[in-house]
Amino acid sequence: EIEKSQDARDEDLKSFLFVLAGAMIFFMQSGFAMVCAGAVRLKNVQNSMLKNLLDACGAAVAFFLVGNAFAFGGQFETTATTFVGLSEFASIGPSAPFWFFEYTFSATSVTIVAGTLAERCQMVAYLCYSMFLAGIIYPVVAHALWSNNGFISNFNVDPFLGSGAIDFAGSGVVHLTGGITALFATLILGPRRGRFYDAQGLPLSKPKPFPGHSIALQLLGTMVLWFGWFGFNPGSALLLGGNVGEIAANAAVSTALAGASGGIAALFTNLFIQERKTGEPHFSLVMAMNGSLSGLVAITAGCALVEPWAALVIGIVSGWVYIASSEWLIKLRIDDAVDAIPVHMFNGIWGMISVGIFASPDKMDVTYGVSKHVGCVYSWARGSSDAALLACQTLAVLFIVGWTMVTVFPFFVWLNYKGWLRSDSLEELVGLDISYHGGGPGAVGDGEVRKEYVEA
Amino acid sequence: EIEKSQDARDEDLKSFLFVLAGAMIFFMQSGFAMVCAGAVRLKNVQNSMLKNLLDACGAAVAFFLVGNAFAFGGQFETTATTFVGLSEFASIGPSAPFWFFEYTFSATSVTIVAGTLAERCQMVAYLCYSMFLAGIIYPVVAHALWSNNGFISNFNVDPFLGSGAIDFAGSGVVHLTGGITALFATLILGPRRGRFYDAQGLPLSKPKPFPGHSIALQLLGTMVLWFGWFGFNPGSALLLGGNVGEIAANAAVSTALAGASGGIAALFTNLFIQERKTGEPHFSLVMAMNGSLSGLVAITAGCALVEPWAALVIGIVSGWVYIASSEWLIKLRIDDAVDAIPVHMFNGIWGMISVGIFASPDKMDVTYGVSKHVGCVYSWARGSSDAALLACQTLAVLFIVGWTMVTVFPFFVWLNYKGWLRSDSLEELVGLDISYHGGGPGAVGDGEVRKEYVEA
Amino acid sequence: EIEKSQDARDEDLKSFLFVLAGAMIFFMQSGFAMVCAGAVRLKNVQNSMLKNLLDACGAAVAFFLVGNAFAFGGQFETTATTFVGLSEFASIGPSAPFWFFEYTFSATSVTIVAGTLAERCQMVAYLCYSMFLAGIIYPVVAHALWSNNGFISNFNVDPFLGSGAIDFAGSGVVHLTGGITALFATLILGPRRGRFYDAQGLPLSKPKPFPGHSIALQLLGTMVLWFGWFGFNPGSALLLGGNVGEIAANAAVSTALAGASGGIAALFTNLFIQERKTGEPHFSLVMAMNGSLSGLVAITAGCALVEPWAALVIGIVSGWVYIASSEWLIKLRIDDAVDAIPVHMFNGIWGMISVGIFASPDKMDVTYGVSKHVGCVYSWARGSSDAALLACQTLAVLFIVGWTMVTVFPFFVWLNYKGWLRSDSLEELVGLDISYHGGGPGAVGDGEVRKEYVEA
Repeated sequence: EIEKSQDARDEDLKSFLFVLAGAMIFFMQSGFAMVCAGAVRLKNVQNSMLKNLLDACGAAVAFFLVGNAFAFGGQFETTATTFVGLSEFASIGPSAPFWFFEYTFSATSVTIVAGTLAERCQMVAYLCYSMFLAGIIYPVVAHALWSNNGFISNFNVDPFLGSGAIDFAGSGVVHLTGGITALFATLILGPRRGRFYDAQGLPLSKPKPFPGHSIALQLLGTMVLWFGWFGFNPGSALLLGGNVGEIAANAAVSTALAGASGGIAALFTNLFIQERKTGEPHFSLVMAMNGSLSGLVAITAGCALVEPWAALVIGIVSGWVYIASSEWLIKLRIDDAVDAIPVHMFNGIWGMISVGIFASPDKMDVTYGVSKHVGCVYSWARGSSDAALLACQTLAVLFIVGWTMVTVFPFFVWLNYKGWLRSDSLEELVGLDISYHGGGPGAVGDGEVRKEYVEA
Repeated sequence: EIEKSQDARDEDLKSFLFVLAGAMIFFMQSGFAMVCAGAVRLKNVQNSMLKNLLDACGAAVAFFLVGNAFAFGGQFETTATTFVGLSEFASIGPSAPFWFFEYTFSATSVTIVAGTLAERCQMVAYLCYSMFLAGIIYPVVAHALWSNNGFISNFNVDPFLGSGAIDFAGSGVVHLTGGITALFATLILGPRRGRFYDAQGLPLSKPKPFPGHSIALQLLGTMVLWFGWFGFNPGSALLLGGNVGEIAANAAVSTALAGASGGIAALFTNLFIQERKTGEPHFSLVMAMNGSLSGLVAITAGCALVEPWAALVIGIVSGWVYIASSEWLIKLRIDDAVDAIPVHMFNGIWGMISVGIFASPDKMDVTYGVSKHVGCVYSWARGSSDAALLACQTLAVLFIVGWTMVTVFPFFVWLNYKGWLRSDSLEELVGLDISYHGGGPGAVGDGEVRKEYVEA
Repeated sequence: EIEKSQDARDEDLKSFLFVLAGAMIFFMQSGFAMVCAGAVRLKNVQNSMLKNLLDACGAAVAFFLVGNAFAFGGQFETTATTFVGLSEFASIGPSAPFWFFEYTFSATSVTIVAGTLAERCQMVAYLCYSMFLAGIIYPVVAHALWSNNGFISNFNVDPFLGSGAIDFAGSGVVHLTGGITALFATLILGPRRGRFYDAQGLPLSKPKPFPGHSIALQLLGTMVLWFGWFGFNPGSALLLGGNVGEIAANAAVSTALAGASGGIAALFTNLFIQERKTGEPHFSLVMAMNGSLSGLVAITAGCALVEPWAALVIGIVSGWVYIASSEWLIKLRIDDAVDAIPVHMFNGIWGMISVGIFASPDKMDVTYGVSKHVGCVYSWARGSSDAALLACQTLAVLFIVGWTMVTVFPFFVWLNYKGWLRSDSLEELVGLDISYHGGGPGAVGDGEVRKEYVEA
């Protein structure tokens, strides 16, 4: 051991740090679970919890069998640009720490969808789409943006437009992919019974709120997610060659600031709007929580690449993006039980775009060792009109949206056609816990159901 | 400082990583607490929570005063094989990071028992057995398997059969020891009132389910445990000389895969069985959660030593072991409030045995630098019939079961004889929170108790 | 990269560890939130949760804009002793990992106050005092004790009495500052309606207990805090030059032992006292939890500087300090919804003083490389009467109490005078969730409030 080179030793230590950061990301599964547990009604808690657990389990198996192969298979053997990797199936590939770390990202992407579809989706549909997402949809996106062979990846030896798209920790790959899947899924699944329409199918004058069963658990989930995000964003520095600590610390600072400003912006903007409308100022915890999560999603793509002031700006805008898109979805009568679409999809897009605007030359040098194509505010300040990075970011967004749409949309249409997607009306009424899980707090005995659970 | 050798610097960094991994293991106490909080009835929550907190507290004091001495005292001073260490009482020994890390393991072992005995055990019995377990039972097992002086330890200079038993992170030392204690304790303590017998003591036709008060907290606990397990298993790599990162990453991959396949196997196997019996397929969250925990327990002994495919197999089998043993305990009318015996005892045994079957030469070289005696599937593939490792694993299991039985059984019989073990019938009926803790949600005022808590 | 010096590589790794430890400290926000969620009544849960989230958000912004500048601005440019730093506003200063780590401490200090004032404080008052605390009060204290320019800091080139005060991880800077603010705030805010006085304002014969809504969440919060403390205390070793792992491990051992002995001491001392008074021994979970937290607060100042036996002693005394001061506050009819004043203020003082008593020469050499002035038990053992360290510790306590008093007291008096401090009586009665947040579990429809929430 004495003769082991220092590089090998440093590499070995980095492997250990991969495990710690990956564990923190894995822990985000608990965060998503608690957000769901808090946001759904008591009669559907067991159902939501099972889906969250199965996301962690299913993604591990799927990422082992095919996901890692499609996403990263053979990326160190060829520099050719490919659509998917086609080697290393049923394998963790050449590096155990890399596989573990990437698995936790894929599990995160999958779990975003479950919240949106909560309280009305059949178990069989869930099982199908989560396997499909973890095994195929997500890996293709990860390949395109993160693999050395990806067509839009900044790790490609000949990157698109000389720049390639930068998604440092996954605003696009993880959050947008999950969010856009959630959108198409809920479009086909339809809103929860009684949320936007009455029993006769006539639209309600205003949507019926379905208050979650525990705001404390929802807050816990939000904070667990934020904690895990410090593994998600700073941890991604480990994928790079040098300066991992410096890059990670920059990412941590941005993550703290954007989460903070997102929450504050959403809280007070909503307060102001509601006060104008109703005359009563209400401090909405749900707004603040989802605003913070929005800031975290948005900063994920650029956390190591933007200055602290820019992180604050990105966070503030993300709070506004959240409020506007959440409102818009309600107007469109698109039902999202935990507001995952505004948080993860719309702010995933904003996060990708924000890199094209705010990526600073200094941080890019520290992170990637190159800063030829930077965010446009810096290009303009240089007197240049170079927008290659912004163009790549936009293209990456379009690719993710397009790819997900052409695969997910027909898939859910097919599920729906087979009758496997939507719970039937009675199942939804009594709650999925009793319908699919043989019990739950609403079950009082064989075949009986508590009246108050049905009415909730 | 400039002259500090690189070895000393690396060693210092490892000390820091010990602290981080140890903290994650410590956090598993919260996981056990939430599993219990979710699984017990509301009238016993405070009681369960106090026991969990006291496990963390009591184990620290006990491991400082005597536990560390019995387990590891003087292990660097002599290579003789001993039954217990007899130096370093009331001391953390030569290494602070080592003491801290090992303390967190001892606390884990103790806390396994509390769940099984929940809802019917006196506080004084709890205090006695937890001190006894942390101070004597557990340290002797740790000494035998993990100390340089242990008779069955693979760290012994002259290991048993030239191999010694391998328990990388504690399927045997931690989980089996805790699980077997739980089994003997509940045998003497008896089932909860009304679980298997009616008020006249006649056996019920089927056991009465006692649904826990919060499935969300139980899921949270499961996920916290899984998170902590990434400190438990990969962290144990720090105890070895070199390649700590590589070993840790291998352990992390196995931990993810076995937990996943255990949960999936238990969920779908139970679904299939229930569908055959009742015609209705039910997705049981409790099965999935305990299946995952079973997979985690089983992989603990071999996490760094088996290939990913073997981790999947170990996990699947652990799910079956869980279902079969859980069913069996119910048939025997042995009451385990949180199913800790199937999870920790039966899968602790399976985990130990699985090392003897699946330990791969490659991983053993990476981990220990030797691979003379490997798992039998590899021995057979080599054309050898060497089963020294499997023999050692089996012997280690027998030792743990035997040692625990001869100490714990008389101990609990004695507690019972003194009348210190079982809560009296009325205490159990009104709930332990009111009986021992002067309050709780069921207390409405001085001397009054809410009727619904008594009936629950 | 090949030519990067080993020192630079080690420094880079330390930056990564700063992020991990900082993340654990950040996670303590969840711990405080769950302690509050468990300890307040259901009608005020949303209000408490929002304050906890805003602490994390607001502290990030405030510490970026002004806090870091006041506390640490320019500390590497001059060795002069100053009252506050006056450079690096709206900046993270020279080091991203340092800023991130210190931010998490400032957020912790702020969040201590919210618990004490729970259930009766207006949102506007909360917003004002939390900004004031994070932006000014806390940074001045941090400057005095932790900056190179602080007048009482042991990092000052010419420390006070040749020693300076030692507050390794913040018993004084973080906990005492937060605790003393909580005390003055509640003095002016007054007790919750019905806690000590009846509707006519006449004192009750005994205080009315307001049991929290979930003891399980309170336990979870306590354990999360303890977990985070292993980032808080050992993580602070990263601020020092060398031996970070060894120092961190010493800190971890002390943290485990003091938390353990604090909990045990408080539990059994309370048991004994109650048994003497009422004849019935009750194991109080709240006592055990707050006792453990007390031990953790008290050990924070000296965790790396005391021997394990001393950590046990400090913990035991902290349990007694908790019981005595909690009882005393009740006698004085000072209402503290989560007992934050006994835990953080009184034990913050005890923690600071305990360093002056127990700081050992060996540990001081390891930690700071000097051991001229040590704890008095060691001075006495040396035959010296040197009490310079104890004097500095005492002076530091007086400074913190004095500075906080002269700023916080008039500030809260002013808030009260403006009518911005206390919720009005009806708001408090129906609960702050409905009053300020437009809903909550007690709201059954527009304008209606559930009767049982008002009565609770």
